[in-house]
Amino acid sequence: MSSPDYSQQGYQNIKVNLEEAVLTIVINRAKYRNTFTVSLWKDLCDIFQLCDKDDRVRVVILTAEPTAPAYCSGADISSGWDSLWDPEAEKEGEHAHRDSGGVLALIIYRCRKLTIAAVNGHAAGVGMTGLQLPFDFRFAWSGAKLTFPFVRRGIVAEATSTYLLPRLIGQSRASSLLLTGATVFPDSPHIKDLYHQILPTREEVYPAAKAFADDLAANTSQLSVAYTKGLIQHPGDSVEENHLFDSRAMRLTGNSADGAEGVRSFKERRLPKFTGTLSKDSSPWYPWWRRFDVLHRSAKL
Amino acid sequence: MSSPDYSQQGYQNIKVNLEEAVLTIVINRAKYRNTFTVSLWKDLCDIFQLCDKDDRVRVVILTAEPTAPAYCSGADISSGWDSLWDPEAEKEGEHAHRDSGGVLALIIYRCRKLTIAAVNGHAAGVGMTGLQLPFDFRFAWSGAKLTFPFVRRGIVAEATSTYLLPRLIGQSRASSLLLTGATVFPDSPHIKDLYHQILPTREEVYPAAKAFADDLAANTSQLSVAYTKGLIQHPGDSVEENHLFDSRAMRLTGNSADGAEGVRSFKERRLPKFTGTLSKDSSPWYPWWRRFDVLHRSAKL
Amino acid sequence: MSSPDYSQQGYQNIKVNLEEAVLTIVINRAKYRNTFTVSLWKDLCDIFQLCDKDDRVRVVILTAEPTAPAYCSGADISSGWDSLWDPEAEKEGEHAHRDSGGVLALIIYRCRKLTIAAVNGHAAGVGMTGLQLPFDFRFAWSGAKLTFPFVRRGIVAEATSTYLLPRLIGQSRASSLLLTGATVFPDSPHIKDLYHQILPTREEVYPAAKAFADDLAANTSQLSVAYTKGLIQHPGDSVEENHLFDSRAMRLTGNSADGAEGVRSFKERRLPKFTGTLSKDSSPWYPWWRRFDVLHRSAKL
Repeated sequence: MSSPDYSQQGYQNIKVNLEEAVLTIVINRAKYRNTFTVSLWKDLCDIFQLCDKDDRVRVVILTAEPTAPAYCSGADISSGWDSLWDPEAEKEGEHAHRDSGGVLALIIYRCRKLTIAAVNGHAAGVGMTGLQLPFDFRFAWSGAKLTFPFVRRGIVAEATSTYLLPRLIGQSRASSLLLTGATVFPDSPHIKDLYHQILPTREEVYPAAKAFADDLAANTSQLSVAYTKGLIQHPGDSVEENHLFDSRAMRLTGNSADGAEGVRSFKERRLPKFTGTLSKDSSPWYPWWRRFDVLHRSAKL
Repeated sequence: MSSPDYSQQGYQNIKVNLEEAVLTIVINRAKYRNTFTVSLWKDLCDIFQLCDKDDRVRVVILTAEPTAPAYCSGADISSGWDSLWDPEAEKEGEHAHRDSGGVLALIIYRCRKLTIAAVNGHAAGVGMTGLQLPFDFRFAWSGAKLTFPFVRRGIVAEATSTYLLPRLIGQSRASSLLLTGATVFPDSPHIKDLYHQILPTREEVYPAAKAFADDLAANTSQLSVAYTKGLIQHPGDSVEENHLFDSRAMRLTGNSADGAEGVRSFKERRLPKFTGTLSKDSSPWYPWWRRFDVLHRSAKL
Repeated sequence: MSSPDYSQQGYQNIKVNLEEAVLTIVINRAKYRNTFTVSLWKDLCDIFQLCDKDDRVRVVILTAEPTAPAYCSGADISSGWDSLWDPEAEKEGEHAHRDSGGVLALIIYRCRKLTIAAVNGHAAGVGMTGLQLPFDFRFAWSGAKLTFPFVRRGIVAEATSTYLLPRLIGQSRASSLLLTGATVFPDSPHIKDLYHQILPTREEVYPAAKAFADDLAANTSQLSVAYTKGLIQHPGDSVEENHLFDSRAMRLTGNSADGAEGVRSFKERRLPKFTGTLSKDSSPWYPWWRRFDVLHRSAKL
């Protein structure tokens, strides 16, 4: 088990706070409209990998200052798309490129803790894709202007958004967003199914997400969450295979200390007190799927 | 063709009524809050297998007494999770366990008739998963408290719910339910897409489902229903493969007696009178998918 | 690059108009309730193949006269289903049949341009499936009566609808439509997620779709659209594979003339002027998926 001191990681672009079992990450580039740069990308890749392994963390929230001009206004393209290409990969050819938003999206999607994007400002580009779609839950300010601008910028929907968005809200709504580059508000019928909760002011978004996170951190089992996330993301190729997977996960968790506490607390009509952790209680069977590595060999993460 | 007398099956936990082509199954454990036990599980596994083969049955409704404390309040865990494990399978190890809710879910999902869950009371655990998700349609009382409590009980979302729920309503809404253990009402934005119809009182749920079932029983072709269900559940690996499947199903049904009656009734501007049955008219090509068996070898169903 | 004169194709069942980059196709069989015949099918298969290859076309709209009795009232079955079978294929057996609605659906789904169904009248059967589901966007008149009548006609849901509809709006809503044969209006909770926009009168549907199309035609990159459509339809077998695909597409488009114009117009705070075309700028890597041919060998398209 690793228990890093998040204040000592030297992050330049994020502020981090661990309170009880809830880790809050605040994007700290308000003066640049919270644009996405290589430097912010590295901070985020790092912290999501760290907290995945930190048993103290049960829920992670990504948010921005409510006074910032945006939650994240997309990639910084002041010097064109060129800043996106890795010089090492470039030497090999077009197939070697790895989209940075996608690298981060995979890291967040694979995080075994509950993840929340608290979108308390406008969002565009990677601020809609990598910084929202791979999360388990999204909270939003009703006044946030939301845009997937790619087809209007001569590029493509990135950061695994063409995989995730149709699965999250259906291909009909996903096409209305990804193929138009339209700007919508969270309560638009095109996008509302993406949001767990929509709040009327920017200031209310993080507190609502934090209260939600506090409850989940206090009352859910770390093992149950990780296995259920795994089942949702990797359900198997058929309903029959899913039955084999969830049966085994049920057998393992049912026999665990958290499973026993689940029954006990239910019978005693009290809230549970789960003490199981991923480092201590995870089975060698987990993960049951192939976690293949698609990083370019020049990647330094 | 089999035509069982449903009143002579010795069911202890359900009441059954076949009226015209609609089979109604009522969970009959009100005094135990309609909890799910091995005994109820066996009755339900049995009857869904029986009616699948009974040509007289076109629509199946599962419901509860509207005066019961719940539609189904989940597994009976008064003696812990242990009652869930099959002693025979236990000897072999954790991989041999088969979740009972999942075994039932597969049987219901595979039933070739139209299936309706008429949820006229609160529902939790397997009362949300196995007893709702594998059905074709769900009706609900607007006051029903609905919960997938697994992550708050130290176990995992079971009964193939991690496969079915994201497909039924999208992964965004499914995560809001499966990863929180929250209690919601049917008209919550998180769950409403699961329900075909929501009724204001408990008493109205079954009559609404029954009227819907009567219409479908009278006016749909058994073969058309079975093949269309098969196409929805097993669409093929690509849109091209789906085209091959639905073309062949169209060719077979278009040439059937029911297909001819479909045209005739349309031209004569009257309701159809379909007489085709699965035992008589089903093609050797159906099912076109592999129906593999995942029961443990100790299963007695 | 091909630049056909659409007025010289001898179409009997459709009227066609190319205005700037928007191609409008009007079904022209009002006197037969816009029923779907072999002749209409051939016109539509032909024009969607033509405009796919015509660089001038960026958006395609299919619509009907707002004064017609229907957008499309389904297949013409005045002589039964027999008109659906191809005599050549019949000689080989049931496996050789190719559903004509499905053949057309595949052609429309594969069209690399943005496609819009402007449903300004009632729709049934193939008017709901092949003439709506494979499009990127659907606009509808709120008073349109919409029906997937198959199970009430003794046949099955066709034209790849059992593949497309559950993906577009989820299996729960898809079952409520495909397994009931019910007639619904566009704002029904069962179907509303299918529609990009719903208009109060028949007369407003096409103008709304046309204004939407004009904006997309003027402000989106042809390459960006084609690649993003490809990513949505063929996202890969896992989120990791999707990351490889969208990374390569990002690398290709980011380096294209349209990608450069995207950055330039953004920095100059003006609308973009994309000049890239599929014939000129598409990569040999595209399409990255197998486009296998499932036409029967007797097909003449």
